[in-house]
Amino acid sequence: MHPVREIAVPGFRGGAVWCGIKKNRKTDLAIVLSDRPCTSDVLFTRNRVVAAPIEWGRGLRSRSALRGVIANSGNANACTGRKGLAAVRKISAEACGKLGLPDESLLVSSTGVIGVPLPEGKILAAIPRLRASLSSEGIQRAGKAILTTDAYPKRAMRKVRVRGGTVTLGGIAKGAGMIAPSMGTMLAYVFTDAAVRSSDLRKAFRGAVARSFHRIVVDGDMSTNDTTAIFANGACGLPSLEGKDLADFAEALHELLLDLALMIVRDGEGATRVVRISITGARSDRAAEAAARAVATSLLVKTAVFGADPNWGRVIAAVGRSGIDMDPARAELSFAGEKVMRRGMVIDRQAERRAAPKIRKEAYGIDVALGLGKGSYFVYFSDLGHGYIRINAGYRT
Amino acid sequence: MHPVREIAVPGFRGGAVWCGIKKNRKTDLAIVLSDRPCTSDVLFTRNRVVAAPIEWGRGLRSRSALRGVIANSGNANACTGRKGLAAVRKISAEACGKLGLPDESLLVSSTGVIGVPLPEGKILAAIPRLRASLSSEGIQRAGKAILTTDAYPKRAMRKVRVRGGTVTLGGIAKGAGMIAPSMGTMLAYVFTDAAVRSSDLRKAFRGAVARSFHRIVVDGDMSTNDTTAIFANGACGLPSLEGKDLADFAEALHELLLDLALMIVRDGEGATRVVRISITGARSDRAAEAAARAVATSLLVKTAVFGADPNWGRVIAAVGRSGIDMDPARAELSFAGEKVMRRGMVIDRQAERRAAPKIRKEAYGIDVALGLGKGSYFVYFSDLGHGYIRINAGYRT
Repeated sequence: MHPVREIAVPGFRGGAVWCGIKKNRKTDLAIVLSDRPCTSDVLFTRNRVVAAPIEWGRGLRSRSALRGVIANSGNANACTGRKGLAAVRKISAEACGKLGLPDESLLVSSTGVIGVPLPEGKILAAIPRLRASLSSEGIQRAGKAILTTDAYPKRAMRKVRVRGGTVTLGGIAKGAGMIAPSMGTMLAYVFTDAAVRSSDLRKAFRGAVARSFHRIVVDGDMSTNDTTAIFANGACGLPSLEGKDLADFAEALHELLLDLALMIVRDGEGATRVVRISITGARSDRAAEAAARAVATSLLVKTAVFGADPNWGRVIAAVGRSGIDMDPARAELSFAGEKVMRRGMVIDRQAERRAAPKIRKEAYGIDVALGLGKGSYFVYFSDLGHGYIRINAGYRT
Repeated sequence: MHPVREIAVPGFRGGAVWCGIKKNRKTDLAIVLSDRPCTSDVLFTRNRVVAAPIEWGRGLRSRSALRGVIANSGNANACTGRKGLAAVRKISAEACGKLGLPDESLLVSSTGVIGVPLPEGKILAAIPRLRASLSSEGIQRAGKAILTTDAYPKRAMRKVRVRGGTVTLGGIAKGAGMIAPSMGTMLAYVFTDAAVRSSDLRKAFRGAVARSFHRIVVDGDMSTNDTTAIFANGACGLPSLEGKDLADFAEALHELLLDLALMIVRDGEGATRVVRISITGARSDRAAEAAARAVATSLLVKTAVFGADPNWGRVIAAVGRSGIDMDPARAELSFAGEKVMRRGMVIDRQAERRAAPKIRKEAYGIDVALGLGKGSYFVYFSDLGHGYIRINAGYRT
């Protein structure tokens, strides 16, 4: 699940420049643009405190017919008041104007530090250079320019055979910390040359997000800026997807978003491991989800995973405090496929010893079977180590 | 608020021995005992997964008339099934028998590793030595024998003038990690020579716990073993407390428990600072509590506090994701008394600079005023630094 080297989607061009927000001269302004009209969908953070681009984006009438996105990193334009909102409007107007696009046909995103006024002048001045940087190989450069504390860029591709030909999906994302429960500091954009009707695109996209980005947990915080969007421009030349073709497209979209989501959780700030916590046998899916999220956000579990300790006691204690109905005497628990607890009791130290080498790996599963019903849920989470402290205790300084 | 050196409460004796559970030969078996009948009250963890002593304790008919407590450290007797429960019964019977007490007149507690069978033979064999160790100066030795990952013992005392004389309250506690929201891995016992009617004692004790132990957050986990209890033996020789005397006693009890609670949060595993997050102007106290707890458990906030960064953006983002009704444009936020945000916007960098030296201190406050209503709440929380990772990634090994 390493990022693909290049992203190319027919009818889309990308570009990136350094406009002067990041101090280290890394690219900090990105664009991806369709050369023709699209159907689109956008999802924003559920945080009550939202950045200016989110407030602006929620009011966009063109959310289902956007042509692409312009995004800066290094500054979140959050908690910046009316001036921040005015800056988004200026960027939108200037970019659409300079690119010869209809008004409000670009999504505007920002990521980075909260509460510092956005130096929109730097962005506005850089738009001509940004336009000049556009190329059909430029999507991965755009993917790099949106990064902040990420250790590596996230990109993924899928090709889907459909009646009459093939459609392509390409995605870029950024995100490392502040992930969960409803898309952390995360930007993710998907571009496809498929022709998809607006309502079909919306359904496929929201279903795929629910099974990917909403199932990853790094630190349980939720950012003011999270945005994920999809753009479908029909450049493949085929008719709008239907029936099995549409279902195959939706499945490929889900796989692509899961690729990106797992790259994000693996890049959880300072993370060394990714664990899939799966709860089965709960009274309901909702109860299973509450338990899975309690485990995934438990500091004691996350530090035990970092320390490669099969500490199932902390896992079952986290399930116990999640508030769901459970009976420890019916619960079973496995680490990396090795059952270590049965009927709420330790089996023997041998089982833990068998599990020990398996949980030193980069990825494994913890399974809890509650034995009460048919409810199930899983999430992916990262461990908590010294790297997280190092990055987050000094992020702004 | 350093622990008092010695605890002495008329009519109570304490003792401690090493029975062989802890490998480092530190004392691991404690007892505190009244020389006469008491009124008492006990509160247990709300975790669904509870240790054997909690399961046993919940069924005790004598919970309002206990004489004292016997507690071991180094093993939680949790997830140990029927054998664990049988072990508690044996310890209870043997201790009461050897000490010449009525059946089930001692509370039994355990704290330490989960899921390892309790070596109850070591405890049973040590009871004669434990009895021999009893003395009126022994309560602080008992306080040391219940410690696990604690950096220091927690003890506090209060004397209250009442009509006809003075009553004494003495308390011992243990706890460092896994604290919140409903008493973490915490044991806390209060002994008093006051005469208090059972219903009055219960009311005063539960009120004091709600305003102390339930307001501290270390890592948001909740243990399987938390227990707090009070024992009042009337050895002062005065009649049962009433009216203003009872109110003064209740207030002293609250202060004593808050002393112990703050010692615990300051000893949060690896903690360097204690912060009081206070939310005012919420629609309701319940909303204010949800917001305060979201801030107190946010890893991004806790690491910023560790890094002495006045990162109010993370604080307001945590309030925003707590699910409560809020309008960032009406919110104000102060660090250590320095207002850094007004109407959802940064004031200026000067304000942060003024706050900077104040938030390097061991204790300070963060205040968020929402400007919507009269709801308010506060909790105390510790920061998250490398010490927490070091302790918890290697606790069992």
